[in-house]
Amino acid sequence: MNKIEHIGIAVKNLEESNQLFASLFGKPHYKIEEVASEGVKTSFFKSGPNKIELLEATKEDSPIAKFIAKKGEGIHHIAFAVDDIKSEIARLKQEGFTVLNEQPKKGADNKLVAFLHPKTTNGVLIELCQDIK
Amino acid sequence: MNKIEHIGIAVKNLEESNQLFASLFGKPHYKIEEVASEGVKTSFFKSGPNKIELLEATKEDSPIAKFIAKKGEGIHHIAFAVDDIKSEIARLKQEGFTVLNEQPKKGADNKLVAFLHPKTTNGVLIELCQDIK
Repeated sequence: MNKIEHIGIAVKNLEESNQLFASLFGKPHYKIEEVASEGVKTSFFKSGPNKIELLEATKEDSPIAKFIAKKGEGIHHIAFAVDDIKSEIARLKQEGFTVLNEQPKKGADNKLVAFLHPKTTNGVLIELCQDIK
Repeated sequence: MNKIEHIGIAVKNLEESNQLFASLFGKPHYKIEEVASEGVKTSFFKSGPNKIELLEATKEDSPIAKFIAKKGEGIHHIAFAVDDIKSEIARLKQEGFTVLNEQPKKGADNKLVAFLHPKTTNGVLIELCQDIK
């Protein structure tokens, strides 16, 4: 795992949170992207080599809507950049982690992604992500 | 804010979590540090330009013990590296954020640190940290 690619933060209102995080970082988000398959609208901020991804649910039954209903707004996941997501999935399965996506799926920001179940990672939802070339 | 300096993760048992995160990253933690004033024992892992800080409470009334009692193990805070923590505190106060430490305090890893109250940051506990020169 090369770096923290991004941190995903669940928010209720993307427009309001875009303003909040623009004040925090002293600069605005640089893109908005909807991922219909996940029922989510995202916006991205840069922080040096890392990104912050704000996540607003677009459907009542989306994972982000369920997360906010249960836990409130806040940090949803950490994503680590990997060079080869398939070999990382194989390695982590062998180490005993529960991989939620044995076949990586298309995520936001032109990435292939896979998640590890938080029950095997100290309660932290971890995403692996690899650039799609 | 230059980059994500580290992500702090609250854990119940530092020894067990050190093994877990060593399996995750494919390499062991590189240091252990106790911060008596915060009632916490920490260990650090590198992920490229970023760090993961595991936090185990050493006292029943420490903030980490209270966090785990309320929310369970998981992500506790995000720390951003800043060049000049005093000017960032002043800027963020002006922007309307609640700064919990108007005077930065000494944290782990030779840093001056200050926290923003999560009620003003979408439920995310944010730490600013500056290297002590």
